[in-house]
Amino acid sequence: MKDHVTHDSQPILNDTEGMAAALAWAARGMFITAPNPRIGCVIVKDDVVIGAGHTQPAGQAHAEIQALRDAAARGNDVRGATAYVTLEPCSHHGRTPPCSDALIAAGLGRVVAAMVDPNPLVAGRGLAQLEAAGIGVRSGIMAREAQELNIGFFSRMVRGLPWVRLKVAASLDGATALAGGESQWITGPDARADGHAWRARASAIVTGIGTVKADNPQLTVRGLATPMQPRRVIVDSRLEIDLDAHILQGEPCWLVAAAEQPGDEKAAALRAAGHEVLYLPNAHGKVDLPALMRELGRREVNEVHVEAGSKLNASLVREGCVDELLVYLAPSLIGPGQGMFDLPPLTQLTERRQLRFHDVTRVGDDLRILARFAEAAQSSSATPNKE
Amino acid sequence: MKDHVTHDSQPILNDTEGMAAALAWAARGMFITAPNPRIGCVIVKDDVVIGAGHTQPAGQAHAEIQALRDAAARGNDVRGATAYVTLEPCSHHGRTPPCSDALIAAGLGRVVAAMVDPNPLVAGRGLAQLEAAGIGVRSGIMAREAQELNIGFFSRMVRGLPWVRLKVAASLDGATALAGGESQWITGPDARADGHAWRARASAIVTGIGTVKADNPQLTVRGLATPMQPRRVIVDSRLEIDLDAHILQGEPCWLVAAAEQPGDEKAAALRAAGHEVLYLPNAHGKVDLPALMRELGRREVNEVHVEAGSKLNASLVREGCVDELLVYLAPSLIGPGQGMFDLPPLTQLTERRQLRFHDVTRVGDDLRILARFAEAAQSSSATPNKE
Repeated sequence: MKDHVTHDSQPILNDTEGMAAALAWAARGMFITAPNPRIGCVIVKDDVVIGAGHTQPAGQAHAEIQALRDAAARGNDVRGATAYVTLEPCSHHGRTPPCSDALIAAGLGRVVAAMVDPNPLVAGRGLAQLEAAGIGVRSGIMAREAQELNIGFFSRMVRGLPWVRLKVAASLDGATALAGGESQWITGPDARADGHAWRARASAIVTGIGTVKADNPQLTVRGLATPMQPRRVIVDSRLEIDLDAHILQGEPCWLVAAAEQPGDEKAAALRAAGHEVLYLPNAHGKVDLPALMRELGRREVNEVHVEAGSKLNASLVREGCVDELLVYLAPSLIGPGQGMFDLPPLTQLTERRQLRFHDVTRVGDDLRILARFAEAAQSSSATPNKE
Repeated sequence: MKDHVTHDSQPILNDTEGMAAALAWAARGMFITAPNPRIGCVIVKDDVVIGAGHTQPAGQAHAEIQALRDAAARGNDVRGATAYVTLEPCSHHGRTPPCSDALIAAGLGRVVAAMVDPNPLVAGRGLAQLEAAGIGVRSGIMAREAQELNIGFFSRMVRGLPWVRLKVAASLDGATALAGGESQWITGPDARADGHAWRARASAIVTGIGTVKADNPQLTVRGLATPMQPRRVIVDSRLEIDLDAHILQGEPCWLVAAAEQPGDEKAAALRAAGHEVLYLPNAHGKVDLPALMRELGRREVNEVHVEAGSKLNASLVREGCVDELLVYLAPSLIGPGQGMFDLPPLTQLTERRQLRFHDVTRVGDDLRILARFAEAAQSSSATPNKE
């Protein structure tokens, strides 16, 4: 996926088609660019794509450079061509030199950006630099799609927080498991495969000690080619985890406990096995979940994928840590069983937590619902910043 | 809606377009044809609709006759034209003379039917009669859509049972009401208006005494022009209903009790107020719900709309009386509350009741899910019969 470059043979007849092609390229970087955003670029001349690329893993080339290299490798002359980029080209020295310089040097005739870099400190500077060099610029083409593709990156730039997506799978009547606990296979194979793709696009998977004890999951990405496994993060206030738990085998985990115990042998053993133990206590002797999310943001986690039980799910919702729900509904009735969220009873309906449906799709025999909390939806459209 | 006839000005270029126009006409009969099916007919000549109509209330004209009359009223010559009908024209004397005779007499050139009348006793006879008279025939165009439009009629013809649709409105986490009972306004105004349209297409609304006591609903169709109100049917084993209940005011109801009590004054009072009391006991001293559905079929109810509480909902599901669920999901979390179905706990997941998602649509801020029980979906595609 990193080096193999294919090309759309379809003609590009307008800016929307050009940007759609750039977005398709951006999506090819879905699992590899973190903590950088997934950006795509196509270079079009005489209605034909003559070069294309997407952001490479951090420290390597940005999308624009990839597209220029691709055009060069194919013997195409980019002078006077139009570049479609899913975010305003960077104009500053980060881990790599500024893309605006490269586009100017290559003699591009026009640059179209899906969105201006919304960080007020740099907003528009990349495009202004191009314009000053005599290159035609346009921005604001398919900006919403470009924003969605990097919702976690923008969240981190704007809020210092990752975008937190909480996954649950339930029957149509809302049960995630039988009252007795059996929960495997509520949804079908297509939904489970889809769930792995959502895991793969996150940089961290958060679960709780309850789920580790009950289901002993690995919480790895399987059945999907990805060069990076998300970091497994286990909320375990009192470090009760069994050192033989499946999740502790393989790649190192981050254990999040409430308070260091004097002479804590479990913490020492976990560290000896390569895991990291973080202490983030709140006033109630539990893990401070908002502080955990801030810490994950600080550690450059763009998207968090939560797969936990109804208790941690409810705590995350109550403490305002969840931006969106990823709900798989199976076409079945279970009756009394475990619920999605172990919330306290409401005394009146106006106290209910309000979301809005963002996307509803059939996945195999099941239904996938993305629903966003009203507050999250607002804060995510604020001003982000490209790395 | 009954007499005012409008015409599509769009040209009809093939049989699928002709049948789509006929189906649109059929749908205009949605609320008026019961217990007859909703059938539409358009007559096309030189790619133009020259006459159109739909089934009128029982005892009045069928769709074909309406379309012929419409063409005549507009001075159009139907000789040699093509008629698109959403069900094979009848060839027998029912409450009205056979439509096949009328089409032959009018000199139609061709008749296209969405589906052959699937009653084995008459299947194909209408089309054969047309063919024998030298008229070209074709059938099987958009048959599935035609079947869906009259799913209740076909159910009654084939199984002697109405099509039973059970409506619930719940939060995304599956609560239909707070634990304390408050349930008003879980879904938004668009979903509630949509719910009234589903009520209106049913000939009977079934509820339980629990809902009557808790919510005191009217269960009438409101906010929608319909000439017929569905019959309100109340499952009330011991005739506990209060004579002042809202549902007993206005049009007569059918009360369904388990067993006649000696000197039953409540039954006498209900009858005196114009209501009907039916006794349908089962072996457990409760109402025999399958027998109730058979009785509603016998009374020519095509579609039943259930709006009840979790207890009657669960009994109907457990006794195999429900064909499809009409679920409105609101984008909110309520936590612990009343469930959709008060089913007994399962001991293993394989015992869950399996459905399949039939249709998923956004309605305002809410989601509308139609899900069918696996068994129902099978039996509904069997051989129906036109009245």
